[in-house]
Amino acid sequence: MSRHLLSVDSLTRESVDHLMRIAARMEPIAQRRQVTRVLEGAVLGNLFFEASTRTRVSFHAAFCRLGGSVCDTTGFTFSSMAKGESLYDTSRVMSGYCDAIVMRHPDQGSVAEFAAATHVPVINGGDGPGEHPSQALLDFYTIDKEFTRLGKQLAGAHVLLTGDLKYGRTVHSLIKLLSLYDPMRITLVAPPGLEMPDYLIDLVASRGHRVEQRTSLADDYADVDVVYTTRIQKERFTAEMSEGFSLSRDFTVDRAFMDKRCGRDTIVMHPLPRDSRPDANDLDVDLNGDPRLAIFRQTDNGIPVRMAIFATLLQVEELIEKDLRPVRWFVPERVGVDDPSL
Amino acid sequence: MSRHLLSVDSLTRESVDHLMRIAARMEPIAQRRQVTRVLEGAVLGNLFFEASTRTRVSFHAAFCRLGGSVCDTTGFTFSSMAKGESLYDTSRVMSGYCDAIVMRHPDQGSVAEFAAATHVPVINGGDGPGEHPSQALLDFYTIDKEFTRLGKQLAGAHVLLTGDLKYGRTVHSLIKLLSLYDPMRITLVAPPGLEMPDYLIDLVASRGHRVEQRTSLADDYADVDVVYTTRIQKERFTAEMSEGFSLSRDFTVDRAFMDKRCGRDTIVMHPLPRDSRPDANDLDVDLNGDPRLAIFRQTDNGIPVRMAIFATLLQVEELIEKDLRPVRWFVPERVGVDDPSL
Amino acid sequence: MSRHLLSVDSLTRESVDHLMRIAARMEPIAQRRQVTRVLEGAVLGNLFFEASTRTRVSFHAAFCRLGGSVCDTTGFTFSSMAKGESLYDTSRVMSGYCDAIVMRHPDQGSVAEFAAATHVPVINGGDGPGEHPSQALLDFYTIDKEFTRLGKQLAGAHVLLTGDLKYGRTVHSLIKLLSLYDPMRITLVAPPGLEMPDYLIDLVASRGHRVEQRTSLADDYADVDVVYTTRIQKERFTAEMSEGFSLSRDFTVDRAFMDKRCGRDTIVMHPLPRDSRPDANDLDVDLNGDPRLAIFRQTDNGIPVRMAIFATLLQVEELIEKDLRPVRWFVPERVGVDDPSL
Repeated sequence: MSRHLLSVDSLTRESVDHLMRIAARMEPIAQRRQVTRVLEGAVLGNLFFEASTRTRVSFHAAFCRLGGSVCDTTGFTFSSMAKGESLYDTSRVMSGYCDAIVMRHPDQGSVAEFAAATHVPVINGGDGPGEHPSQALLDFYTIDKEFTRLGKQLAGAHVLLTGDLKYGRTVHSLIKLLSLYDPMRITLVAPPGLEMPDYLIDLVASRGHRVEQRTSLADDYADVDVVYTTRIQKERFTAEMSEGFSLSRDFTVDRAFMDKRCGRDTIVMHPLPRDSRPDANDLDVDLNGDPRLAIFRQTDNGIPVRMAIFATLLQVEELIEKDLRPVRWFVPERVGVDDPSL
Repeated sequence: MSRHLLSVDSLTRESVDHLMRIAARMEPIAQRRQVTRVLEGAVLGNLFFEASTRTRVSFHAAFCRLGGSVCDTTGFTFSSMAKGESLYDTSRVMSGYCDAIVMRHPDQGSVAEFAAATHVPVINGGDGPGEHPSQALLDFYTIDKEFTRLGKQLAGAHVLLTGDLKYGRTVHSLIKLLSLYDPMRITLVAPPGLEMPDYLIDLVASRGHRVEQRTSLADDYADVDVVYTTRIQKERFTAEMSEGFSLSRDFTVDRAFMDKRCGRDTIVMHPLPRDSRPDANDLDVDLNGDPRLAIFRQTDNGIPVRMAIFATLLQVEELIEKDLRPVRWFVPERVGVDDPSL
Repeated sequence: MSRHLLSVDSLTRESVDHLMRIAARMEPIAQRRQVTRVLEGAVLGNLFFEASTRTRVSFHAAFCRLGGSVCDTTGFTFSSMAKGESLYDTSRVMSGYCDAIVMRHPDQGSVAEFAAATHVPVINGGDGPGEHPSQALLDFYTIDKEFTRLGKQLAGAHVLLTGDLKYGRTVHSLIKLLSLYDPMRITLVAPPGLEMPDYLIDLVASRGHRVEQRTSLADDYADVDVVYTTRIQKERFTAEMSEGFSLSRDFTVDRAFMDKRCGRDTIVMHPLPRDSRPDANDLDVDLNGDPRLAIFRQTDNGIPVRMAIFATLLQVEELIEKDLRPVRWFVPERVGVDDPSL
């Protein structure tokens, strides 16, 4: 793996395998059965020029669980850039204070520009329409872990991606990671106008995967192993696009769809946040408590995966096993009241 | 004690006694004579959807003093809820990252809704007009500790609550806690229209306490042990209400009131912040430096009480004594320049 | 040194020497070759009523590197002061929670007022047009360290201060610190109307230094050891002031100036942030990568200097050597891609 984690494009199957292996080793810490102090004394700069509580807290907690300290910066409190400071200067200055930097920024390419000025490891926490590689890695880790639990194999699996496949950066990154592995079947279901870009379909096909595009969820998906759904934002819809089908429910994954169209072992994923307002037509809350709903196991997986990213970039992955002790405080068997996770 | 701390209503005399006992044991740490590492590796999510620096910093410091790490979220940076995420989803996601959660929110009931989705301990840090149980516990702890210092007993004590007794949630919670104990005398002094709600007076009376209501501080209060004053907000006053007395000073506790009406041992409490602007008529600054003014000892007590809450909910209260070492840095004998505390 | 660090005026040559000595001892920790746990259990209140990411993160990281925990408060989230709480009350309350307090505030004198209410060490992190003593100390430390590297002496050195010498508080504080030492030569170059105030020139001259004022950089500065430049803000310029010279470039330090006017060993300093926008005419980016550009070594020095301030105020400077262990994670040889530091 290179010095920084800026894009899934820089990842090989070997580097992904390594991260997955390390993430699995982090599970006892992430699940709070053990604690480590391996990063004691290290400081993470968690620079969020754009608000994202989930991602910020997840990186923060992951670094703390390795024994390090975190300094958060959110939103407009990043004052010096308002005074004309370049990303180059900001990067170099922060590098003198911190041992690793996570950065989220609304402008595509800004995190790479920031990283170009420093030797301190930089992790892209999302740069607008650009990349968000740790999300793709935790998505991939989730599929892998769920498959292991279910006795399934990645090779030959059938993955359904649905929703806004044009603008959703998480599905773009995920499909790139999947394409590094043995041939599988990928079905893409999006309304006309929100399809997956051609260059990605070509990439995946060129690596030996079978890609199929459909325009409706009203089909048989009994052999699908994973349904990965993303929200369709109304503002993406023009008058012409919505002709001929109802946006209201046609792309909503809910219990009826899962029961009628999918198998008993099909898992449901979503990058979150999920819009639970009645007219949002996002992933339906009627699946809450259903063991197939993997969305919270998915966010839980953000901790071991981000720990693995830090451990790998800071080269402590082999030291952690020598620095473990048991947790001493109360940890509930399950953190959520109606899900089977942790 | 139950899994969460959401309301004083769930507390029994036994659970309050337990918390008070543990808080007393936390004093050497809170006063920085000893340090512990018992929560090393644990992460607190300190979620403040509404700003409250004192409460946030107090919980933050208390968790750190137990050896844990804290991730703060304040105000509008909590972005996903703006995107339609439900409290259920937010709660479940945060529970995968954190070992305990403190939440303040402007909407009554929201913290309980949040807590209903998780097995991770949740502490209500204030939900609008609702509850703020840690404040009530530190108020009660302060009375108990001051009484011990003064050689007084809770049974038979005389407590005066004054100011806005209708909207002040801290006095509502405190009176509930006091009512769990042996009979005492409680005098309520509020302007007409801002009296303590009847259901609370009935509750306290039904438990054997002697409750008396008055409308003026211009009385003899020589046998009062505690004066607990809250600010009257001008906007609460309508034209009719203020007829017949001057809002300006009639409910202000100051040195003249203490010297003329109260005893030499009467302590003065206030939930803070205190409005020190000249026309605010809040608790007067002319009592600063007077040993009867207990308001800063009261906020100091927030640390051992919140440590006790964390220690109890996370079930480490018996482990701390085995994990103590002396402080190595400089600690002033008194932290304030003109008060006798710490 | 006194209990607080509020102003450079309270510093003697002896106290500056002590801080410099301790800062030098902190280097192995600041450069991440060693870690300490000496402040484990201690809590810093990092109160920034005015945004300043660099200063806030630098203090935060310095306290963490000593093993302590930090609670940040930024901007408008400091809610109680909006409700009329006095600095006295805020100070006393925070003192019960924290072992040291850094405060930045837009109003001159406010930090001193805050400090007057507490025995807990308070560090002025900048009070508007007032003081920012840790910046002056890191500037001084940088000169001292660079001189050692270059085999130079402070006595007899030639320091050039240029830019806005009237409003720039950093140059005011730095010149006071320099004046405590053996006679040197100080040249001040500012446009008419932005000259160094007379009282400071008189102070420095009265202590035996040779002070010279000029109005142009178009001179020979071959024997200058340090060029300390600050940005001239356009809004400071009135029509009359700018007559006779071009603001656009006349006070810009760039590679041409360094190559033509200065020596091969002359270092360039700047308090940062540097405005890199094309029309800002701040310190030029064409010096990036030039070893004479010391601005990032200067910000790096903020860590050991702020560690020394904390260690001295909290009286642990003699304990640290007994509590050191090697860093276990990856630390790059140089943190910046084109500078020779760290």
